[in-house]
Amino acid sequence: MLCSMWTNVFLPARKYCHASMLSRLKIAEEVTKLSELKAQLGNKNEVSSKLILKTPKGTRDYGPEQMALRLAVLDKIITVFKRHGAETIDTPVFELKEVLTEKYGEDSKLIYDLKDQGGEILALRYDLTVPFARYLAMRKISSIKRYHIAKVYRRDNPSTTRGRYREFYQCDFDIAGQYDPMIPDAECIRVISEALQCLNVGPFTIKLNHRSLLDGIFTTCGVPNDKFHAVCSSIDKLDKNSWSEVKREIVEEKGLSESSADKIGTYVSQSGGIELIYELKKDNELMKHESAVNGLESIELLFKYCNIFQVTDKIIFDLSLARGLDYYTGIIFEAILTGDEVGVGSVAGGGRYDNLVGMFDSKKKSIPCVGLSLGVERIFNVLEMKLNHESVKTRTNEVEVFVATAQKNLYEERMKILTLLWDAGVKAEHSYKKNIKLLAQLHHCEESGIPLVIIIGEGELAKGEVTLRDVVSRVEVSIPRAHLIDEIRKRL
Amino acid sequence: MLCSMWTNVFLPARKYCHASMLSRLKIAEEVTKLSELKAQLGNKNEVSSKLILKTPKGTRDYGPEQMALRLAVLDKIITVFKRHGAETIDTPVFELKEVLTEKYGEDSKLIYDLKDQGGEILALRYDLTVPFARYLAMRKISSIKRYHIAKVYRRDNPSTTRGRYREFYQCDFDIAGQYDPMIPDAECIRVISEALQCLNVGPFTIKLNHRSLLDGIFTTCGVPNDKFHAVCSSIDKLDKNSWSEVKREIVEEKGLSESSADKIGTYVSQSGGIELIYELKKDNELMKHESAVNGLESIELLFKYCNIFQVTDKIIFDLSLARGLDYYTGIIFEAILTGDEVGVGSVAGGGRYDNLVGMFDSKKKSIPCVGLSLGVERIFNVLEMKLNHESVKTRTNEVEVFVATAQKNLYEERMKILTLLWDAGVKAEHSYKKNIKLLAQLHHCEESGIPLVIIIGEGELAKGEVTLRDVVSRVEVSIPRAHLIDEIRKRL
Repeated sequence: MLCSMWTNVFLPARKYCHASMLSRLKIAEEVTKLSELKAQLGNKNEVSSKLILKTPKGTRDYGPEQMALRLAVLDKIITVFKRHGAETIDTPVFELKEVLTEKYGEDSKLIYDLKDQGGEILALRYDLTVPFARYLAMRKISSIKRYHIAKVYRRDNPSTTRGRYREFYQCDFDIAGQYDPMIPDAECIRVISEALQCLNVGPFTIKLNHRSLLDGIFTTCGVPNDKFHAVCSSIDKLDKNSWSEVKREIVEEKGLSESSADKIGTYVSQSGGIELIYELKKDNELMKHESAVNGLESIELLFKYCNIFQVTDKIIFDLSLARGLDYYTGIIFEAILTGDEVGVGSVAGGGRYDNLVGMFDSKKKSIPCVGLSLGVERIFNVLEMKLNHESVKTRTNEVEVFVATAQKNLYEERMKILTLLWDAGVKAEHSYKKNIKLLAQLHHCEESGIPLVIIIGEGELAKGEVTLRDVVSRVEVSIPRAHLIDEIRKRL
Repeated sequence: MLCSMWTNVFLPARKYCHASMLSRLKIAEEVTKLSELKAQLGNKNEVSSKLILKTPKGTRDYGPEQMALRLAVLDKIITVFKRHGAETIDTPVFELKEVLTEKYGEDSKLIYDLKDQGGEILALRYDLTVPFARYLAMRKISSIKRYHIAKVYRRDNPSTTRGRYREFYQCDFDIAGQYDPMIPDAECIRVISEALQCLNVGPFTIKLNHRSLLDGIFTTCGVPNDKFHAVCSSIDKLDKNSWSEVKREIVEEKGLSESSADKIGTYVSQSGGIELIYELKKDNELMKHESAVNGLESIELLFKYCNIFQVTDKIIFDLSLARGLDYYTGIIFEAILTGDEVGVGSVAGGGRYDNLVGMFDSKKKSIPCVGLSLGVERIFNVLEMKLNHESVKTRTNEVEVFVATAQKNLYEERMKILTLLWDAGVKAEHSYKKNIKLLAQLHHCEESGIPLVIIIGEGELAKGEVTLRDVVSRVEVSIPRAHLIDEIRKRL
């Protein structure tokens, strides 16, 4: 009955004009810039107020509506993770600094450090993967399938209007253990696919590549071993920058020859399905290198398993996918939206990291791992924009019954009824004002989507009854107090 | 059917010997100290390993079993908060340092600072109340009822075996708005009572006091105005220290006269029910001070409302309750366990803080607030100890069906069945090893409490069937693949 006013926050995927989505993003960006400038000006004019009232740069509060959406999204994601048998763990928001060093390559400069306050050097976690590896090594766990949903911190200069923040949620699902090739990896692809489908963010593609294949390509193109990671970081920027920009970086900053760079260019421009694997297998120069052969065979096996898991239509083999982080060793993947929400960037990513746990073990004993991370902030953004566009109101509380009074000085009667309701587990509230007009109380119920109101007045009290009103239909019935809970349960 | 093995993590309250609970706490404390010493020794002997594998001081990881318990506890608490109509918000884990200064009195030294990394001076949040007040002022919100569950940070030297950590969860419920006296305050008492009852932590008492009354008492005892907060902090320690220790602090550190301190002592030793209010009203010296009169009248009104909310048997008026934080202005309260778990300290607390929001407003416009915080870490500890004591195993995942193979090389068939199950929303997993003994697969199911196993072998494949096995009863039936999902749904 309430559907017309209060719809579920998840809407069927709708078609948007791509250009209009991008222009809305652009406008939002400009509006934010202007408000920031205005805030700065305001503070200069207002000499008396010393305190600048804001959240730290790159962070934000989430109000009740945003939280309702976020919790609904996370709940759907957790359902998918649990469907695949994952348990959950939690780790501290900060780690010993040395746990985080040498794990993130060029991105290490984005780590938030804490002040040294008597001995320990601490830093806020940059992702959930490194703390997970530390956890496995510390507890000597040899196999686990876990999910972890928590905030991570990156001292980036993000475009907050595009959904990038310095504090943001990560939703990770990882499988650790010594298993047969590509079986857990394929399940990760399936998990991403299930999650994105149930969230109704529109069509998407999951790009796949393999670090060994990239290594093989780099060797073929004459990149020295010690520059693999650096070149990888540059290639990783191909989703945002053009090839000519990336090439310039490879040549000028990373010191590769023009011809090496051009050769890399011919490889990383390729993408496709299983046929691309067969094509590359005919590349004799590439096939001389064992790592390229291994990488290609792994991708072929992954394609086979993805076929069984019925996600073939979602995947694409993309040689330009590099993923910046140092710790990947095998398959890597990244999901992007391909419908009208293009431009929001990657909404999921991950890969295999077989040596990370070993970095924490004194005997270098490692645990092979593969996992994924859902870019929920971008997903929230896409969904929020859809809701705004459709002017859908989200309920932010779950109150079932409001207890109202029709005359003055009956507030103690309200409180007695509330005690009854709470004892019976009914979600109920009243006004914290003793004497408030009935109309104001009813208006509040309509505004906040509360379905039922109990009204008590002198008349009702005398008869030992209450009036029960359906907020949407405005139909009222008289009910003896003794039957109140039963009647409410019937209606909810 | 599984109840015998896999009970719900919530147990009926049981009776423990108080002495044995305390001695277990003591033993746990000693064991921790010894392990820490051992770890230090170990690190000195092992010259080769540079990395000390640990979480930062005062923090810990939560494994799957701990998380299962914690999420179940939080879920119950959220149900109570929602029953009272609360919505939820979230704020960043760090704030501008100036937001936190001058809010916590003597405890300010426990705030974690971040390194200055280009302009902003940041600190980790110390509680959820000050960020909430900053949020209200910043968004100019005049009324809200919200809950917030998140981690907070205090650079204390905690006794981790007693459930005190530097990083810990707070569960806050607050009502902000200009309302009639004691109506929201009484609801906070009711919320604490509902939460503690549903968590089965055993009997408890909620101590009540009022900051105005304390002010009145201090004036009566000759404490200068500017020493109210300092004396309050000392009184606050009466739950852990004896009166003679607190008196010494008041006299020697806070500079009060011996006779003033003694006079305070006669007041703060009193506690009781409504009769204590009547008693104090006869104290002419005290009643000369308006703040004492106001405080007493407020408590009397609160007792009246608590009676309507049927929590009178849970509350006690206790003049020694002071609460350390600077921001309280009215009623203050604190819940302690009174059964066999005494010694764990306060499990909930809160109070009214009418001026905090105004501290963030340039025109000092404030929003009256009252709220509570549940000490969930201590509650977790009490419940964990109960579970350990009763050797109850907690399920850490929710897998409903395990897909097993009876012969080698059938793993692709497993994956086909899994795809079917996942598509139907069934929580299912298999081994990530291609060829694994059937016995090992069945053993895993029994170990992890998975209720159903699908077994496929050559025979089943030939007939287009699967074997469905009930893990506990070990009864097996043959089922055509086409009916698989229906049959599973029937059994779950």
